[in-house]
Amino acid sequence: MREDEKGYLKEWSNIHSDVEIDYTDQIFNDETVELAKGYNGVVLLQTQPYSRTSLQKLQDFGITKISVRNVGLDGFDFKDLRDLGFSLTNVPVYSPNAIAEHTTSLMLRLLRRVPEFDKKFDNADFRWFPTIGEEINGKTVGIIGTGHIGSVVARIMMAMGAKVVAYDIKPNPFLENLGIYVNSVDEVLKQADILTLHTPLAKKDVHMIDTAAIAKMKDGVIFINAARGGLVDTDALIAGLDSGKIGGAGLDVLESENDVFQKKFTSIDDVKDPQFKALINRDNVIITPHTAFYTTTAVHNMIFDSLTDNLNMLEGKTPKYPVDITVD
Amino acid sequence: MREDEKGYLKEWSNIHSDVEIDYTDQIFNDETVELAKGYNGVVLLQTQPYSRTSLQKLQDFGITKISVRNVGLDGFDFKDLRDLGFSLTNVPVYSPNAIAEHTTSLMLRLLRRVPEFDKKFDNADFRWFPTIGEEINGKTVGIIGTGHIGSVVARIMMAMGAKVVAYDIKPNPFLENLGIYVNSVDEVLKQADILTLHTPLAKKDVHMIDTAAIAKMKDGVIFINAARGGLVDTDALIAGLDSGKIGGAGLDVLESENDVFQKKFTSIDDVKDPQFKALINRDNVIITPHTAFYTTTAVHNMIFDSLTDNLNMLEGKTPKYPVDITVD
Ligand SMILES: NC(=O)c1ccc[n+]([C@@H]2O[C@H](COP(=O)([O-])OP(=O)(O)OC[C@H]3O[C@@H](n4cnc5c(N)ncnc54)[C@H](O)[C@@H]3O)[C@@H](O)[C@H]2O)c1
Ligand SMILES: NC(=O)c1ccc[n+]([C@@H]2O[C@H](COP(=O)([O-])OP(=O)(O)OC[C@H]3O[C@@H](n4cnc5c(N)ncnc54)[C@H](O)[C@@H]3O)[C@@H](O)[C@H]2O)c1
Repeated sequence: MREDEKGYLKEWSNIHSDVEIDYTDQIFNDETVELAKGYNGVVLLQTQPYSRTSLQKLQDFGITKISVRNVGLDGFDFKDLRDLGFSLTNVPVYSPNAIAEHTTSLMLRLLRRVPEFDKKFDNADFRWFPTIGEEINGKTVGIIGTGHIGSVVARIMMAMGAKVVAYDIKPNPFLENLGIYVNSVDEVLKQADILTLHTPLAKKDVHMIDTAAIAKMKDGVIFINAARGGLVDTDALIAGLDSGKIGGAGLDVLESENDVFQKKFTSIDDVKDPQFKALINRDNVIITPHTAFYTTTAVHNMIFDSLTDNLNMLEGKTPKYPVDITVD
Repeated sequence: MREDEKGYLKEWSNIHSDVEIDYTDQIFNDETVELAKGYNGVVLLQTQPYSRTSLQKLQDFGITKISVRNVGLDGFDFKDLRDLGFSLTNVPVYSPNAIAEHTTSLMLRLLRRVPEFDKKFDNADFRWFPTIGEEINGKTVGIIGTGHIGSVVARIMMAMGAKVVAYDIKPNPFLENLGIYVNSVDEVLKQADILTLHTPLAKKDVHMIDTAAIAKMKDGVIFINAARGGLVDTDALIAGLDSGKIGGAGLDVLESENDVFQKKFTSIDDVKDPQFKALINRDNVIITPHTAFYTTTAVHNMIFDSLTDNLNMLEGKTPKYPVDITVD
């Protein structure tokens, strides 16, 4: 449990004073699982896998209800959960606005050349020229994926005066009435002055944005990815930035982010990841360390919804966010 | 004429190939006025006053049509213009979105603690904690002045999920139907989690935001001023930041901005303005050098509308933006 989660845990605990809660800052593994002994359920959050051994031990302690505080379930082998009789909940939606607002902020920082203005400011240069900016108003914003997050991005972009063109394999009827959908990803790539991704990372969508996709984009396109790093062939993106095809990139996720994000290095030189190194030190690239979701609202909801769902399961009630573990 | 204006001048000139145009990078004064000799009209942009002597010389050259490329008319003595038989146009609206989008960007950068994340990034610290952010969604955004710019800010804030409370001495009927108006500035100050100013600087509104006004605000309020520096008692604002009453400030305009903005100093230490020095070096203050308007759209419109209106006057047509110089 992170420090910033503890306040919300206390808040939830005050409301549910009959529930005994403890927490650990350690990750869940074959040894730390012992800490769960004596409790009825567990609430977890980590990117590391959940081993069968540790799950077996949980079951030995009489615990079969697991709630994760995030969306992702990659760490579980559903067969293990089925074999051992577990029930699972997650928090599939904790605050779409957090990510949509961060996406908007990345666009505005790139369009208004904030990294360059920041440097000028530090150099006591308060002149405008030549750092002239662009507006979202009047631009065509391409959105791939209009689920919980992409639909909020669409709403914000329309309010700013942009023309929105979107593609989704399952269009949203409300947005469909607004006439924003086109028939393919390619059509979005072709039209967008600003392009932003909001799809999950299905296997078929790995490197959705590759050299061929970039070639279809408008020259100077502003590209935002606050979805999943694997959607983008990062080397192709770097080549697009090098050639000037891509005018700017705002990246909250990276293919190799696990080697960099959530870590503290001695200095930037200490970071060895070659893609990361090729992206920083560009005035037209802004990298944020997977912080799009990181608001008090989102963390509150992750804590409250996961704990409440764990309690729901323990009390035999229907949880808000059950995970179907019958299909792999 | 600034460098970034020249492309649009050329564009306008290509469309009006029958009009002979020249320009100078110098400001308009008793000597440089000589450059206008032989022309029929002038298009000007400066913050320095327009002297009676220089206007008299213009008249001697047979020029009585002046178009300024900006809003502000403080530099003119209307009596001089009347005495000498001048007609005047300005550009009162060149791109409300430019300022509204910049205002939004300042809010998001403060709420998501971008200055702190930037420092962490430079120190190769890619951890989230403790730099948790806030969302616009769910907040109450107070808007004082809902004219061209404030009304766009209102639209964007509503799309982001904020509750908007606004005050205007002349409410906008469309926004009135949305029920956003309250009856006084004080009521806005009382309710707003985020407060943004979008009124002109009338004499009675100098230091609209003073110690008494700040005392009425919510603790930790985020304050944005991209309107006019004189609306704010900067010393009171600094005291509010010192006490923590004000949680963050985004300032595109400052009372003493003419001593700092549009200039280049050897280093930040070289800037002597005490208010400026008291505001920088705070993680919760972002200063931008009056760049809210500075987009290609805005500069395009300033050039095109002023030149077209000068031509309109010369051809005896009604200009789009005539200035009423009959009242001082
Ligand atoms: N950066 C962060 O902090 C952060 C936080 C939360 C979620 N995310 C990511 O944001 C993305 C979107 O999340 P969400 O909550 O909106 O998900 P969602 O499931 O609500 O929406 C995803 C949408 O994408 C559509 N889609 C799927 N494959 C597609 C394809 N190939 N082409 C077009 N559309 C496709 C789906 O039909 C759906 O409408 C996910 O990748 C998620 O992992 C990032
Ligand atoms: N930062 C920049 O780059 C930049 C650029 C352009 C304009 N501006 C400034 O933005 C401000 C707004 O510009 P605009 O184009 O929207 O002007 P506008 O005239 O269209 O709107 C101003 C609104 O404020 C209202 N108002 C006047 N006095 C008021 C008061 N005391 N209380 C409440 N409401 C009051 C008016 O009724 C009007 O609706 C001006 O101060 C202008 O100088 C800044």
